[in-house]
Amino acid sequence: MKNIFSGEFKIGILGGGQLGKMLLQKAHDFNLHIAVLDPSANAPCRNLCNRFVQGDFKDFNTVYNFGKDLDLITIEFEDVNVEALEALEREGKQVYPQPAVLRIIQNKGSQKSFYQQHKIPTSPFVLIKNRDDIAQADIDFPVFQKLLTSGYDGYGVQFLENKNTLQKAFDAPSVLEQSVDLEKELSVIVARNAKGEVAHFPPVEMEFNPEANMVAYLFSPAGISPETEKKAVSIARTIVEKMKMVGLLAVEMFLSKKGELLVNEVAPRPHNSGHQSIEGNSTSQYEQHLRAILNLPIGNTAIIQPSVMVNLLGEKGYRGKAIYEGVEEVLKIDGAHIHLYGKYETRPFRKMGHVSIVAPSLEEAKMKAKKVKSALKVIA
Amino acid sequence: MKNIFSGEFKIGILGGGQLGKMLLQKAHDFNLHIAVLDPSANAPCRNLCNRFVQGDFKDFNTVYNFGKDLDLITIEFEDVNVEALEALEREGKQVYPQPAVLRIIQNKGSQKSFYQQHKIPTSPFVLIKNRDDIAQADIDFPVFQKLLTSGYDGYGVQFLENKNTLQKAFDAPSVLEQSVDLEKELSVIVARNAKGEVAHFPPVEMEFNPEANMVAYLFSPAGISPETEKKAVSIARTIVEKMKMVGLLAVEMFLSKKGELLVNEVAPRPHNSGHQSIEGNSTSQYEQHLRAILNLPIGNTAIIQPSVMVNLLGEKGYRGKAIYEGVEEVLKIDGAHIHLYGKYETRPFRKMGHVSIVAPSLEEAKMKAKKVKSALKVIA
Repeated sequence: MKNIFSGEFKIGILGGGQLGKMLLQKAHDFNLHIAVLDPSANAPCRNLCNRFVQGDFKDFNTVYNFGKDLDLITIEFEDVNVEALEALEREGKQVYPQPAVLRIIQNKGSQKSFYQQHKIPTSPFVLIKNRDDIAQADIDFPVFQKLLTSGYDGYGVQFLENKNTLQKAFDAPSVLEQSVDLEKELSVIVARNAKGEVAHFPPVEMEFNPEANMVAYLFSPAGISPETEKKAVSIARTIVEKMKMVGLLAVEMFLSKKGELLVNEVAPRPHNSGHQSIEGNSTSQYEQHLRAILNLPIGNTAIIQPSVMVNLLGEKGYRGKAIYEGVEEVLKIDGAHIHLYGKYETRPFRKMGHVSIVAPSLEEAKMKAKKVKSALKVIA
Repeated sequence: MKNIFSGEFKIGILGGGQLGKMLLQKAHDFNLHIAVLDPSANAPCRNLCNRFVQGDFKDFNTVYNFGKDLDLITIEFEDVNVEALEALEREGKQVYPQPAVLRIIQNKGSQKSFYQQHKIPTSPFVLIKNRDDIAQADIDFPVFQKLLTSGYDGYGVQFLENKNTLQKAFDAPSVLEQSVDLEKELSVIVARNAKGEVAHFPPVEMEFNPEANMVAYLFSPAGISPETEKKAVSIARTIVEKMKMVGLLAVEMFLSKKGELLVNEVAPRPHNSGHQSIEGNSTSQYEQHLRAILNLPIGNTAIIQPSVMVNLLGEKGYRGKAIYEGVEEVLKIDGAHIHLYGKYETRPFRKMGHVSIVAPSLEEAKMKAKKVKSALKVIA
């Protein structure tokens, strides 16, 4: 057995973005040996890892060759070459999350079918092959049409009010998902290690930027009843257990105006809805992911202080080498913790960083978050 | 003016050990461009910086050449080539802490004289040239003899009970310092930026390993009266202001059984007595050092939760490639945060890592710290 903490045990991450970067910042506390594969020479992870490999994580040979000298392979982005991960798994490498889990999650159709099969509440849906199928679809409008693969952060998603708005529709295999009369959106992050230990983070509440369809604010804890919290946690734990997944799973849910909880989608890795855990919770989601994939004891997830996370998105109208305005203003705010991802170029709504604000009360954190939001800009 | 947060502004650190490593872990949140100079190819900083240069930080040319393309040079170890830093400062580089401050601090004689000159309480002392001076020295025994330069972590320090124990004495320029009847040892870390903003961390209490003469435990906050706290803080702030220093200054003090506070020594950089601030305080000492040297607003230093820091020293009797025992036990303890420094080789009492334990009460943190201490070992 190779010693994990002496750098003999070699770990690889597919993807070198901000999630990988924050994972690496923590990984250094455990003296882990980590290699990173990313297509961009300027990836945020480039200066924090033991070895950086520039290459395409969607290409079989690139992923296979990257993984074959490693002991464990993980991801920070799920749209990777699963065939290569399956080959590596067959050869005895540890691959977490498991390729079988990625197969379910990568395809929005199989993800929805998984929920249906395991009686996990999700909004009604139908699978369609192309645009022509929409008119005959047995579903109440309005719907969201979601491409089966490659959709994230609002890409590959289209809102269809009724059957007269089909000209906007994608002409490709997709899921039609009944729109939910939304009270709020929640996320519960769960972790599971190979021993089967499971722990969840207290649910958080997400507020979206309607134009970018990306998380603008995150509130921890979520403003929900104890019953809703209990139900949300139970759903998240059920999914990770039914999938027998090893690693971190972020479960995004809709809370409808009627009080129903419906799973929207899941991500098998550290997630935007867990950034606040770095300063706000006893164990961060990044440390928890490492604990889970390395089969170490799962950490305590208790909230230390309420927190608000503000996503720092590239300003509209700017493209090019990133310039950060208002950092000093943010540094004057007690309890505000700034995280710049180090992406070389900005573009409208690109995730360039985040700020977590911790405070004795959520109200105070929210007030400070407003100040952060108005002070901090990424331009070019 | 170069943009600090866009990686245009280039920073260098002399020294690539654990203090530099923890500084870099935080620096990545600010997207800073940092180069590191260290004599060891295996230095803990090697995989976290933008550029790693292997070289001797005590050599004029090495330091000068390292610094000449940078905008700002700082240190994580004060025993560096000051002449080179002075040359760089003359050429317009920012050097923080300033070379003039390093001159005072590097020499234990000028450090003591500085305290005397500015009426900062410190134990009585005399300066001597060699062993023969000791018999005539106008000082009450017992004393600590400290070599003027190159002493740290108990190296270069000798305890002399009386004038009959002179055979143990160093035959070199040194300070004879009257021994203090010790109640406890305290540390106050202060930060000052170029605008002159000053902030202090709440005092911590250090418990030493008598054999290694190194910090074994750190308690935050210190168990002292509000009056003693006020006095300790005032002393630390006075020193940083009198030195007009920019950066972080750790002020180690003796609290005598009579209740006197006496400055022992200072370190112009992040310090072992501030490790707990990563998890225990609103701003960590590492972030504070960055804020200070970059002339950014000085951060809030409030204690979030009481904490205990346990130094992880190499076990006696082991030398060679480090192996960490008991990590899993520590990971089961709520609130315990492990930091392995990633040093390749262990040796007796070498600082190999630390664990900070935060808890709602210091008593609880102390109980958990005992468990950590007995579980975690570095062997070879």
